[in-house]
Amino acid sequence: MRIAILGTGVVGSTIGDKLVSIGHEVRMGSRSASNEKARDWAAAAGRLASQGTFADAAAFGEVAFNCTAGVSSLAALESVGAENLARKILLDVSNPLDFSKGMPPTLTICNTDSLGEAIQRRFPDTRVVKTLGSMNCKVMVEPSRIAGDHDVFVAGNDPEARAQVSRWLQEWFGWKAPVDLGDITAARGLEMWLPLWVRLMGTLHTADFNLKLAR
Amino acid sequence: MRIAILGTGVVGSTIGDKLVSIGHEVRMGSRSASNEKARDWAAAAGRLASQGTFADAAAFGEVAFNCTAGVSSLAALESVGAENLARKILLDVSNPLDFSKGMPPTLTICNTDSLGEAIQRRFPDTRVVKTLGSMNCKVMVEPSRIAGDHDVFVAGNDPEARAQVSRWLQEWFGWKAPVDLGDITAARGLEMWLPLWVRLMGTLHTADFNLKLAR
Repeated sequence: MRIAILGTGVVGSTIGDKLVSIGHEVRMGSRSASNEKARDWAAAAGRLASQGTFADAAAFGEVAFNCTAGVSSLAALESVGAENLARKILLDVSNPLDFSKGMPPTLTICNTDSLGEAIQRRFPDTRVVKTLGSMNCKVMVEPSRIAGDHDVFVAGNDPEARAQVSRWLQEWFGWKAPVDLGDITAARGLEMWLPLWVRLMGTLHTADFNLKLAR
Repeated sequence: MRIAILGTGVVGSTIGDKLVSIGHEVRMGSRSASNEKARDWAAAAGRLASQGTFADAAAFGEVAFNCTAGVSSLAALESVGAENLARKILLDVSNPLDFSKGMPPTLTICNTDSLGEAIQRRFPDTRVVKTLGSMNCKVMVEPSRIAGDHDVFVAGNDPEARAQVSRWLQEWFGWKAPVDLGDITAARGLEMWLPLWVRLMGTLHTADFNLKLAR
């Protein structure tokens, strides 16, 4: 499958590496076609990996991941071109965490709105599914690094897109049945979980943990 | 032990019932000494139970629980009288959830502040410990109703108060080692977990679930 990774940070490269490793063609997109991190990633990741502008990557992908930093996702995605994402599924992995004012970080959008909803509004013809952002990126692509069962969530306005993303999470990364939270307004709760996640990372001295729903 | 329950809702009566059942003297406080719900509760809960104003209850208790509705906690606690809570531990169980504008609910304070912090600022001589509010009240007092291990948290500025509350959670309710999140700013993350909790309640069709840290 052809997959776009929008963003050149550790989340994007971790997901990109995993997808390449299981045989997908992955193009990493960034603001400029000469982005060093994207070039380095593509060179290291092998023949299935390539890089280009956000628009190049989005046009290439049958599906796309938003792995840009949440605080600048909306600005970054402006150059994607809505037509390049039209009718496609966009897995939104980002969180609007702002660390610029120190700890604890704050969210640049929350409570009555969310980044997931804002992205869906900006790209109305794209099927945005909020997922995976509730944990560290190593756990996203390798849930088995944590013992026992734990949970991943999907939220988005299109039920078929949520179901498709759930299947991909299982096929690509080895997740057991993801929890379907319904429409994209659930992105509020998913993103507002991050302040507690960040605090827990400090308390537990590791990012290798995840939320499990005990029931 | 003499324990004050501030608030007459289902959270307060559930915690009060449990504390009475294990031999503590519990006084439920409300805005007026003739509050019907508090009178009914005290009559039903037996000889160890009593009721009175917020000030009566706070003065009576060696320790107090804030079980008032989060959206009005600060207003409700105005009549407690800071001197009646001075040097005592206040277990803050409340969440600033506002359901008045429909679903999903919003928080009346969040992100750069929290209700727990606001209460600590208002009662600087009281040792506020945010705890238990991350789950349904039946689970608070009976964690064994959910299979397997799951987690409860404490956050507050006084380490000894956090340790004392952790011991009480174990002795009174049967919790295993609570997770100590440090100072009261962790109340932000604990309260911001609630929008996801509410969404999950709708998805799972039950309030009998809790967060477990898989690691």
